[in-house]
Amino acid sequence: MSLKLDAAQVESAIRGGLRVADRSGLRVEVVSEGYARVRVPFDDSMLRPGDVISGPTLFMVADSAMYALVLAHIGPQLMAVTANFNMNFLNKARPGDVIGEARLLKLGRRLVVMEVALKIDDDPTVVAHVTGSYALPPA
Amino acid sequence: MSLKLDAAQVESAIRGGLRVADRSGLRVEVVSEGYARVRVPFDDSMLRPGDVISGPTLFMVADSAMYALVLAHIGPQLMAVTANFNMNFLNKARPGDVIGEARLLKLGRRLVVMEVALKIDDDPTVVAHVTGSYALPPA
Amino acid sequence: MSLKLDAAQVESAIRGGLRVADRSGLRVEVVSEGYARVRVPFDDSMLRPGDVISGPTLFMVADSAMYALVLAHIGPQLMAVTANFNMNFLNKARPGDVIGEARLLKLGRRLVVMEVALKIDDDPTVVAHVTGSYALPPA
Amino acid sequence: MSLKLDAAQVESAIRGGLRVADRSGLRVEVVSEGYARVRVPFDDSMLRPGDVISGPTLFMVADSAMYALVLAHIGPQLMAVTANFNMNFLNKARPGDVIGEARLLKLGRRLVVMEVALKIDDDPTVVAHVTGSYALPPA
Repeated sequence: MSLKLDAAQVESAIRGGLRVADRSGLRVEVVSEGYARVRVPFDDSMLRPGDVISGPTLFMVADSAMYALVLAHIGPQLMAVTANFNMNFLNKARPGDVIGEARLLKLGRRLVVMEVALKIDDDPTVVAHVTGSYALPPA
Repeated sequence: MSLKLDAAQVESAIRGGLRVADRSGLRVEVVSEGYARVRVPFDDSMLRPGDVISGPTLFMVADSAMYALVLAHIGPQLMAVTANFNMNFLNKARPGDVIGEARLLKLGRRLVVMEVALKIDDDPTVVAHVTGSYALPPA
Repeated sequence: MSLKLDAAQVESAIRGGLRVADRSGLRVEVVSEGYARVRVPFDDSMLRPGDVISGPTLFMVADSAMYALVLAHIGPQLMAVTANFNMNFLNKARPGDVIGEARLLKLGRRLVVMEVALKIDDDPTVVAHVTGSYALPPA
Repeated sequence: MSLKLDAAQVESAIRGGLRVADRSGLRVEVVSEGYARVRVPFDDSMLRPGDVISGPTLFMVADSAMYALVLAHIGPQLMAVTANFNMNFLNKARPGDVIGEARLLKLGRRLVVMEVALKIDDDPTVVAHVTGSYALPPA
């Protein structure tokens, strides 16, 4: 297993294709074997009452981290699509950059399964934990 | 089990508290025993490449439908928070208003479990199916 | 969409292949378009303390109901395998026959997504709710 | 956070309460802060066709690992019950002892969230990955 794209190429592929990711300022910070880390800079519009980061924002960061991991490993195959997404909310997400760290659980020919830890800035607390799968298009 | 809030009251509670829902134009169309239906009017910014509705939009509509169902049954308890969210993506979501139909699976004292069918406009096709739970604050 | 196998053929295929299902006395009661119902007769060994049906028993009935639904729609393709399984426990499962009612959410070429309601005897209460997917072997 | 029970006490509590775990020969090998490892010795009756470990067996081991983790941290509170269980099947589970390694994601007052990696014997391959939650009884 070797990487097909580096972090800059993955970021470019995602932002070129996904307007919402592009506008969010998504950065792909690291891709390595079995791992990807993305960051979405903090913006007031992420907040919901209680001054916590909203669910849709957390979803977007987690999904972007999974997408980055998939693209890094299979190449610029933009038609990979989310199949299943399971999130457990663990702790309040205080205002700050949202970090998504995706780890590969299985890279199959047809399905990629991953888990994602969502964190805020440099705080090691995991605010939400995700497992999800992407369906790959037929070769 | 009787309803604590009607559709207009639920809509007002959600939009007053959640800026992202307010800006999206969220409407709570129906609340009845064990059921809530919400609608988010179509807007170009919902789209991702391939002209399909993006994942974060679907998440937001599903979560709003669950929140509406919870508030209708327990009253204006804004501190109810999502605990688990599991989504299966079933069919491409073509441009259109996004409808979320939430049904109650269990109303416990501490946890409410629901399922949500997401549809587009009047098309009966379910584009994504969600099960999720909300944790209730101690009485 | 028409059925490839009837209830008796599905039951025979499952019991012939799965020893645990065979020993459990699994019956496939109904298969129809988009639907399958299975029953596992009550047996003392299903119980856990508090005289409720154990989790592994509920899992087995739900998985069998999904498998029955898949086989009825795609034919005796025993290599279909569970990909994702998500269960929400809703109510105590009192001693009795365990019924699994599976409904099709999506029949794709590579992935079948279903939901299952688990009930006891004739009690309409849903004791656990499952969504799950099966991966199909390449055609 | 300190442990309320050691591995032997946890094993005794689980086997005393859960006949299916007792008969399976469940061993609680390690409990430490945020971690528990259980082992269920291989037995022919675990197999399904293709000589792989069956789904209900994997479910039982994963659920036992979560239960062990919960009991070690909260004490002999047998009324803790599974609320949500999400499993992704990753690789064929070849015949062998089934190991469940549970890690704590969140220990709340009312909900404990965990993940579990299931492995066979000394093979580091994760055959299935689980996230799940237990609801705790009111204090």
